[in-house]
Amino acid sequence: MYTENIVVPTLILDKEKCKKNIHFMVEKSKHHNLIFRPHFKTHQSRIVGSWLKQLGVNKITVSSLKMAEYFANDDWNDITVAFPVNTREIETINSLAEEIQLNITVENTESIEFLVSELEFEIGFFIKIDTGYHRTGLSFDIFLTIDKILKLASKSNMLNFKGFLSHSGNTYNTKNKSEITEIHNESLYKLSLLKKQYIEKFPDLLISIGDTPSCSIVDDFSGVDEIRPGNFVFYDLTQYKLGSCLKENISVAMACPVVAKHKNRNEIIIYGGGVHFSKERLEINDQKVFGMLVKLTEKGWQFLDEELFLTKLSQEHGTLKVSDQVFEELNIGDLIGVIPVHSCMTANLMKEYITPDTDIIDHL
Amino acid sequence: MYTENIVVPTLILDKEKCKKNIHFMVEKSKHHNLIFRPHFKTHQSRIVGSWLKQLGVNKITVSSLKMAEYFANDDWNDITVAFPVNTREIETINSLAEEIQLNITVENTESIEFLVSELEFEIGFFIKIDTGYHRTGLSFDIFLTIDKILKLASKSNMLNFKGFLSHSGNTYNTKNKSEITEIHNESLYKLSLLKKQYIEKFPDLLISIGDTPSCSIVDDFSGVDEIRPGNFVFYDLTQYKLGSCLKENISVAMACPVVAKHKNRNEIIIYGGGVHFSKERLEINDQKVFGMLVKLTEKGWQFLDEELFLTKLSQEHGTLKVSDQVFEELNIGDLIGVIPVHSCMTANLMKEYITPDTDIIDHL
Repeated sequence: MYTENIVVPTLILDKEKCKKNIHFMVEKSKHHNLIFRPHFKTHQSRIVGSWLKQLGVNKITVSSLKMAEYFANDDWNDITVAFPVNTREIETINSLAEEIQLNITVENTESIEFLVSELEFEIGFFIKIDTGYHRTGLSFDIFLTIDKILKLASKSNMLNFKGFLSHSGNTYNTKNKSEITEIHNESLYKLSLLKKQYIEKFPDLLISIGDTPSCSIVDDFSGVDEIRPGNFVFYDLTQYKLGSCLKENISVAMACPVVAKHKNRNEIIIYGGGVHFSKERLEINDQKVFGMLVKLTEKGWQFLDEELFLTKLSQEHGTLKVSDQVFEELNIGDLIGVIPVHSCMTANLMKEYITPDTDIIDHL
Repeated sequence: MYTENIVVPTLILDKEKCKKNIHFMVEKSKHHNLIFRPHFKTHQSRIVGSWLKQLGVNKITVSSLKMAEYFANDDWNDITVAFPVNTREIETINSLAEEIQLNITVENTESIEFLVSELEFEIGFFIKIDTGYHRTGLSFDIFLTIDKILKLASKSNMLNFKGFLSHSGNTYNTKNKSEITEIHNESLYKLSLLKKQYIEKFPDLLISIGDTPSCSIVDDFSGVDEIRPGNFVFYDLTQYKLGSCLKENISVAMACPVVAKHKNRNEIIIYGGGVHFSKERLEINDQKVFGMLVKLTEKGWQFLDEELFLTKLSQEHGTLKVSDQVFEELNIGDLIGVIPVHSCMTANLMKEYITPDTDIIDHL
């Protein structure tokens, strides 16, 4: 069994589940006639990327120029960086723009002025729109700034306006599917007003949206041209609790050695802490939760009858709150599986995956 | 200025402040006649380690065998792994034990039985004692299990009992110095009872304690033989808020580019997110806090007149809640400094430090 050689916390990737998730989203985007530009910040993996490429994907999203370089060097040549352009990285922007179709994200006149002056090669740019998440972006109704950005950009023949991009990250603060759908619909409405306003002047403009909860759940993409979900390749405990996926769709789990047991409080200590899982957490039944227990099996893992959680994390230690039965079953030196709260953050810390077939999968 | 070449989130190490912190703890341990075995999990750096070595330190603590290997390869030859022994890593334990004085931590009979059977080279072992933190360790009064462990260990000439080791991590849940002192004193009392119980049979046994808040603040180390603080080399916002240090003692800060500004909510978006800071957080005035703003200067950074915070973190984005004045002063493309909530976690993500003299400092 693949677990035999695991001696330290290790991130397991169930290739079949992951490929099924990919297939689902590829088919969904085809069905709705959408450009599918998946976000690669979740997996940051050339091998996982190749599974998307095999299904015809040829445009991707990343959240840093470093990631853009990693994938450009793997023959991806149409990349959107969905992060407010960091002008300090102009050298990297220019060198990437020379090689590939690079799209960046802009939300203020200062960045555009800088780019007009410093760009040496053509790039595409999206204007970031805030449809309600209030992290980044211009409110959809700030036509004045949008017009200023477009006017400034028109001075340069290096800057090609691609359209409006939004990310409804506020779907992560919801409690159920109907709240996710509500946020999605509000976002569609705002973006459709923008599209109406600018489509005449820019007949090719795209409306690009992005979050995994919406893209997983909704079936109305009116007015949308492109979707950029990322987390769907793995999903995680957060997505399961939101209702974006079934727990059977989650394609990553951590394997962690049991190092101590404390019967008086039914706690098991695993080797697996904040430097492995990240300190991303959920609140479930008024309890802090950093992961959910699963039993490792020959082909991956299976869920327990009851939901048991990783409830505390130090730098290297994790504390599992378990039932009497699980407490008795697990021995010092055993491995236990844990579904992470946020797969993007866990993958970013682990920097590598292994599959139950013991294949090593890369991570930037 | 050293900031000129910084284009992405970068961890700055103020060498002078760090060396001062090191000097302080070296002197304090000398004054109290304590063995000083600093924990290297905070900095995980050979260069920072060399500053300790220069002051006579020759014993260290780590939290993983990987770290033990990193420092053993840098000529550290007396290393304690302060983490419940992970029996799955027996190969690494044996190969390290062949080369250096390796000490491990044990808290159950299963691990000791395993080691009795599998050890090929001599090691030291500490019994982990829980003096109130309730993460790992045997309660100080479980003499029965302690005796069993010692009896089992005595069967093997590979296992040398070193003493009792505790970590009062509960000092991190306190609100002021007097609470820290109270926890420390309770811990001393429990450990002194243990020492009395076993000193006759093991005249060389050591009492080893560890947390930075206690080691920074208290002046009573009665019965203690060894201290293992780690975070003190850098300190951080958590330690400052606990009262373990002055803010002027904190020796690391992140430098992050400003990428967006939102006047309507006095928020500034920086390039610097959970993959840089970690999602470790504090609650200050009922607000989630992931870091505190500082102004970067030629020699490092200076504190602002008011305390302003990093209040939200996504994977790559950070949101600063600022005053009108700071909002006006900071421009797109500027760098801003941020003191991290938990320097160990931030350093572990950043994997490298730079000093204001532009020296690169390693991290495992």
